[in-house]
Amino acid sequence: SRSINLAVIPGDGIGQEVVAEGLKVLSAVLPQDVKLETKEYDFGAKRYHATGETLTDADLDELKRHDAILLGAIGDPSVPSGVLERGFLLKLRFAFDHHVNLRPSKLLPGVATPLAGQPEIDFVVVREGTEGPYTGNGGTIRKGTPHEVATEVSVNTAFGVERVVRDAFARAQARPRKKLTLVHKNNVLTFAGHLWTNVFNKVAEEFPEVTTDYIHVDAATIYLVTDPARFDVIVTDNLFGDIITDLAAAVSGGIGVAASGNINPGRAFPSMFEPVHGSAPDIAGQGKADPSATVLSVALLLRHLGHDAEAARIEDAVSADLAERGALPARSTSQIGDALAARVAG
Amino acid sequence: SRSINLAVIPGDGIGQEVVAEGLKVLSAVLPQDVKLETKEYDFGAKRYHATGETLTDADLDELKRHDAILLGAIGDPSVPSGVLERGFLLKLRFAFDHHVNLRPSKLLPGVATPLAGQPEIDFVVVREGTEGPYTGNGGTIRKGTPHEVATEVSVNTAFGVERVVRDAFARAQARPRKKLTLVHKNNVLTFAGHLWTNVFNKVAEEFPEVTTDYIHVDAATIYLVTDPARFDVIVTDNLFGDIITDLAAAVSGGIGVAASGNINPGRAFPSMFEPVHGSAPDIAGQGKADPSATVLSVALLLRHLGHDAEAARIEDAVSADLAERGALPARSTSQIGDALAARVAG
Ligand SMILES: CC(C)[C@H](C(=O)O)[C@@H](O)C(=O)O
Ligand SMILES: CC(C)[C@H](C(=O)O)[C@@H](O)C(=O)O
Repeated sequence: SRSINLAVIPGDGIGQEVVAEGLKVLSAVLPQDVKLETKEYDFGAKRYHATGETLTDADLDELKRHDAILLGAIGDPSVPSGVLERGFLLKLRFAFDHHVNLRPSKLLPGVATPLAGQPEIDFVVVREGTEGPYTGNGGTIRKGTPHEVATEVSVNTAFGVERVVRDAFARAQARPRKKLTLVHKNNVLTFAGHLWTNVFNKVAEEFPEVTTDYIHVDAATIYLVTDPARFDVIVTDNLFGDIITDLAAAVSGGIGVAASGNINPGRAFPSMFEPVHGSAPDIAGQGKADPSATVLSVALLLRHLGHDAEAARIEDAVSADLAERGALPARSTSQIGDALAARVAG
Repeated sequence: SRSINLAVIPGDGIGQEVVAEGLKVLSAVLPQDVKLETKEYDFGAKRYHATGETLTDADLDELKRHDAILLGAIGDPSVPSGVLERGFLLKLRFAFDHHVNLRPSKLLPGVATPLAGQPEIDFVVVREGTEGPYTGNGGTIRKGTPHEVATEVSVNTAFGVERVVRDAFARAQARPRKKLTLVHKNNVLTFAGHLWTNVFNKVAEEFPEVTTDYIHVDAATIYLVTDPARFDVIVTDNLFGDIITDLAAAVSGGIGVAASGNINPGRAFPSMFEPVHGSAPDIAGQGKADPSATVLSVALLLRHLGHDAEAARIEDAVSADLAERGALPARSTSQIGDALAARVAG
């Protein structure tokens, strides 16, 4: 479409700084005839402290009117653990049915990895985003006593698993290697494991060109550090996806360059794009944050909205910038943003 | 005590080969006056195929009479996923209340790691062994239909969490660095997360010398590859422990050297010691398996039974053997076992 109506949520900590650079690059890459409208929202710790609110129904109604959402980071040590996570981040993913949580991992030339021997890394994790242990099901009895019992219920449905598995097969089919790995723990979590495995095997029949395999989540962490090249597309549960995508980010250049999309593929609701890193309050306001992860999240956003050429221009610009970084003196957040904006414009 | 009455379960695949070497080293290290009695049990795939049984009540009654159990590996592709895991391994951990699942990670000199720069790694994971998502709670409705729903219930009790947290504090207190890290996901799994966090903070008051911190499980996987030296003792939930100990094994020399103990600290039931690796059917029967993980599990077994000097002799022998390995031609499973037995014997 020839206009983009974007909700912008800078959020907490370094969120403000990195989102400013993301928008700078977005403005620079868009052709003249694509109209960009942005509206900023003040969700996060400040609003929570001022009003006690994290995300109201009225907020959701407003956000719903946009084509997409760009988020910096939400979270601050002044807010008890879980309040903003469950009250904002997860609430939004669930309300807008972001069932495809997309997290690409690519080790770009010149980028440092903690792994020896600079292995080839180029895979995408398709993490389920609306089920599993993230539903908030469960509870506590006898809280604070020696007899407390707390439960967490992982909820998995054929409907929810099938749609994300199908999405992952389609993504694998579209990539040169056409390989899809299911990551789960079906030898222990046998109820959910059988559901995932059966649905995976059934959908596989529709994609005969895609090679498939299965790996337990514990073994997957081993392969991610000993043989990450074996992965092309991974599909997995919400919690396993949370864990392995942080590890994937670490081995493929760190959370400074890890982008993600919380996607509603049918576009019934706006999708949300955000760097995998958090608000990093320890370095906030100092111009030290790397905006690359946010800029790459903008590329995912553009691709979701059909602006593939612009998405590719951004990805190329980030690659080129990272490749040259070793030779340059350290730059501030906005200097990196300026450099990327210049590259995509040029 | 001056006698050890040991149940031996070689199990499947390479289990047979590595257990033979473990016993060889155990016999060699024990002083003349310690009587070793062993009884072998045929649990695993073969017995399952022959009888349909995995572990009966009568089996448990027999096993109960031993001082400890040495296990090789259980699991074979001919048995559906979950049958032996739930029917044997987990059944035994639950029946014998193995609530402390102990998994040390130490990168020994000369041992290869996938991490660049040969970092210092020397920590212990204390994984809860009888609760969390491993209880088998949950179920399936409308199985095999488009309306299937499968749940997995993580069960966490103050009783179960407190005893393992207390054990971990005691272990941290006894180490030079005296540092304990709680790994959980308390910003999302808020019911279980609050229980773990509150119990952890309460027990911490009894151990004023121990420094504590908290890390989300996703972030923990990042630190395990970027800064493993930050860890001393980690205490965590059953599933998170499963995942991070495979990663920990990978970065600290691989599953060829990763040992574990399934411990009942009060000795109400025999504890079980096993290598972290599985049955590896692809290399079974070829003399290719590294018995070091099993031999190090024997050291954990000896320490649990109070034979600390012998445990240390085994650990030193494995260190020395690994340090020289780079200079030697490849050896078979039994050649490595012979070398270790010769070293511990003196
Ligand atoms: C902040 C937290 C709720 C979130 C998650 O667990 O999904 C984060 O870790 C992520 O991966 O986006
Ligand atoms: C085989 C399986 C049941 C087991 C577990 O999940 O605990 C294994 O992965 C382990 O870590 O000992």
